Amino acid sequence: MSTDKKFVEKITSRDVDFAKWYTDVVKEAKLCDYSSVKGCLNYLPNGYAIWENIQKNLDKRFKETGVENVSLPLLIPESLLQKEKDHIEGFAPEVAWVTQGGSEALEEKFCIRPTSETLFCDVWQKQIKSYRDLPLIWNQWNSVLRWEKTTRPFLRSREFLWQEGHTIHATHEEAEERTKQMFKLYHDFVTEDLAIPLVYGKKTESEKFAGAEDTYTIEAMMHDGKSLQSGTSHFFGNKFPDAFNIKYLDKENKLHSCYETSWGMSTRIIGAIIMVHGDDSGLVLPPRIAPTQAMIIPIAQQKEGVLEKANELLKKLKNIGIRTKIDDSEKSPGFKYAEQEKLGIPIRIEIGPKDIENEEVIIVRRNDRKKISIKISDLEKEIPKILEEIQKDMYNSAKDFLNKHIFEAKTLAEMKEIGNNNIGFIKAMWCGNSECEEMVKNETEGFGSRCIPEEQEKLSDTCICCGKEAKHMVIWGKSY
Amino acid sequence: MSTDKKFVEKITSRDVDFAKWYTDVVKEAKLCDYSSVKGCLNYLPNGYAIWENIQKNLDKRFKETGVENVSLPLLIPESLLQKEKDHIEGFAPEVAWVTQGGSEALEEKFCIRPTSETLFCDVWQKQIKSYRDLPLIWNQWNSVLRWEKTTRPFLRSREFLWQEGHTIHATHEEAEERTKQMFKLYHDFVTEDLAIPLVYGKKTESEKFAGAEDTYTIEAMMHDGKSLQSGTSHFFGNKFPDAFNIKYLDKENKLHSCYETSWGMSTRIIGAIIMVHGDDSGLVLPPRIAPTQAMIIPIAQQKEGVLEKANELLKKLKNIGIRTKIDDSEKSPGFKYAEQEKLGIPIRIEIGPKDIENEEVIIVRRNDRKKISIKISDLEKEIPKILEEIQKDMYNSAKDFLNKHIFEAKTLAEMKEIGNNNIGFIKAMWCGNSECEEMVKNETEGFGSRCIPEEQEKLSDTCICCGKEAKHMVIWGKSY
Repeated sequence: MSTDKKFVEKITSRDVDFAKWYTDVVKEAKLCDYSSVKGCLNYLPNGYAIWENIQKNLDKRFKETGVENVSLPLLIPESLLQKEKDHIEGFAPEVAWVTQGGSEALEEKFCIRPTSETLFCDVWQKQIKSYRDLPLIWNQWNSVLRWEKTTRPFLRSREFLWQEGHTIHATHEEAEERTKQMFKLYHDFVTEDLAIPLVYGKKTESEKFAGAEDTYTIEAMMHDGKSLQSGTSHFFGNKFPDAFNIKYLDKENKLHSCYETSWGMSTRIIGAIIMVHGDDSGLVLPPRIAPTQAMIIPIAQQKEGVLEKANELLKKLKNIGIRTKIDDSEKSPGFKYAEQEKLGIPIRIEIGPKDIENEEVIIVRRNDRKKISIKISDLEKEIPKILEEIQKDMYNSAKDFLNKHIFEAKTLAEMKEIGNNNIGFIKAMWCGNSECEEMVKNETEGFGSRCIPEEQEKLSDTCICCGKEAKHMVIWGKSY
Repeated sequence: MSTDKKFVEKITSRDVDFAKWYTDVVKEAKLCDYSSVKGCLNYLPNGYAIWENIQKNLDKRFKETGVENVSLPLLIPESLLQKEKDHIEGFAPEVAWVTQGGSEALEEKFCIRPTSETLFCDVWQKQIKSYRDLPLIWNQWNSVLRWEKTTRPFLRSREFLWQEGHTIHATHEEAEERTKQMFKLYHDFVTEDLAIPLVYGKKTESEKFAGAEDTYTIEAMMHDGKSLQSGTSHFFGNKFPDAFNIKYLDKENKLHSCYETSWGMSTRIIGAIIMVHGDDSGLVLPPRIAPTQAMIIPIAQQKEGVLEKANELLKKLKNIGIRTKIDDSEKSPGFKYAEQEKLGIPIRIEIGPKDIENEEVIIVRRNDRKKISIKISDLEKEIPKILEEIQKDMYNSAKDFLNKHIFEAKTLAEMKEIGNNNIGFIKAMWCGNSECEEMVKNETEGFGSRCIPEEQEKLSDTCICCGKEAKHMVIWGKSY
């Protein structure tokens, strides 16, 4: 069996049509499909299981920093949504309105939450009286709804799953620190658990969240060179708390403003996993979040002893906590390989009569199809190691790709040329003016500002657009 | 320190005003509060943490039986909701309608799901072609919305959290078996993990779910003698699949109807935990789902070595997986005891200079305030044992209460008298006619049929109401 054969034939080649490749991968792996509820998705078992593992790992990281989970209502009264003016301006055009409850027309209409800043403020306004009530570090796992015009699996849909963390603090410094802490936490989770390398930094004024003072973002490069915003952390200062009149008394009985943050990551990140790691045979899942980490495929399973041995391995691996399955269906090994490949299961374990005779199994790594022969007696020692190696190799390979596709430009002409001849991101200097930002995007046919990285480089003294003094080095890219 | 002193003074006595006691317990333990979104609740960290543990334990049991989680949309188009006529009749009066999306009025209105049978059918209609596609055993953890008139913490609110399982099968038998399997699973979960004893069986025709052929229910007796429906499992036969035209081809290429089930448990169960186990000091949580299982309270913590030793115990217990916290705040031990009691934390560990000298600690069990002195060296061996004992004792004590409050009646007059002089359930014979059922409820001022238990007893030959031949022994009770 060749190590580079493409088992899965129904998937469009990634280089031929990236968008079609993406939807083929999603469809063949049965991750989600379009609902007949227009604009919405059905998250099917294979897709939802990935989300469950993301939730589990991310929630654990949250709780280690003192986050507590809550659940606030789905509905927001219109008057509540309107309390912070930038926020309502940002969200009003894209919310769904409930106007009727049971058989009665409602006096005040409710929107379905597009995000829950206003609801958290409403709870806190009643709860917070003194410095003893602060800080509150809350999060909820839920779905939100925004009346989008287009629908793409995981990337854009009217309803999507996410977590939204909201925190409130006594001081500016503490809130700012939490904003950065969660930004860092997202970075670590995505690079370590999802094997996705990132660029990251602040959003520009025009790209930040409606109502925020600062938005920090992590951005991943998809295989077509576009950026996917993968998690954001917002610092609100006291805009929201003041709009909702949330104040606290300090030890000396003086009244003070509070400071807020919010931060979110959504099922979009599953889109990033697909578009960073996937290949022409389908999904390639990082071992740490793969619902199944190893698939045992018996060869010549009708022969005596093969299924027994295969089931023995299954039990052994399950016992040491490896998420393992066996495919003992009547289908051919080739068909089973294709199934395992399109589902992106990190390790395939092939075991047939000859392997049993030699007291070994063949391991095939999904990410690079490397074959390894290991002794059955070493299985419990080797499989966890191989999974960790795959995790690391997937990160390194994606990191190589990212590094090779970040360019530098000193003039707008240079930037256009790079953009015309390459996929990827471009680093360039910027004066801080949003008109220049807009012009760069128009002139380059879509290279918008992705982030202002914390680690700045001085590529030149002047803005790439207007030629005035440069204030920031920005990473520019096309985006999802 | 007396073992029966009431530390918490803000809670109304359970025997004085049960309803007030209930809301006091919820409020003092900060489990949830009324949202300013009318009819909705805010599930706060202490309450949501209980739900998370319920989810964790129940989800594990689900998955052991082959359940896969999914997530389907929040919205249901009106035309979809209308496809099964009993279902729409049951739910239409209590749903909320979305009539506007963004700035556009919608051509077809959407309701916010009150339950998702119709959405599951819609997905399955597209997916199921052959016998190979069956069965599908799916579940989702979400919230649903029903336009209720009254609101009570955990017991009744417009939006509530739950899980809804939906399955589809090739045969009547298999679907019926799954209905009973999930009914049994709920029973085992509630009795084993929540220490709540149950009565259980089928619902009568008039009490079953809108659209179901059979509804199985587990019912728990609250401390005021009323019943709380704690989980239901429905057998739909082929009513839903036929209404949605879901058919499959068998091995001989013949077309067949499918059979469905659904089953759900909601945050109401937290209300049951409170009203079965709670006392005048507040919440009493079963160890298996208590967010914190042991609270260490240092005595004279300013004395040298006390805090160090207390933290050492904390680390030891955490290491063996006991959910442990330490209260090292500046408050008095009495205040800390009250806190631990109202939160219902199963074990309090008191440790002061004298205890350290004796190399022991004092354990106080929340459920019965029994004090036990144990050697520090035995802590890791003893605490898990004590937690299991508490779990068992809580069940037995609730079971005693239940047994003592189930009565038998042979005539309607007898039933009325029992109902007037006692709290609890009444067993009595019934002819199967829903008019009699209704009359019993009216005559007894609220004793409705709770369930028809599988283990039938023949208390008499005739219906308690009409005197005609009895078909079933029914358990009757007032309910939440």
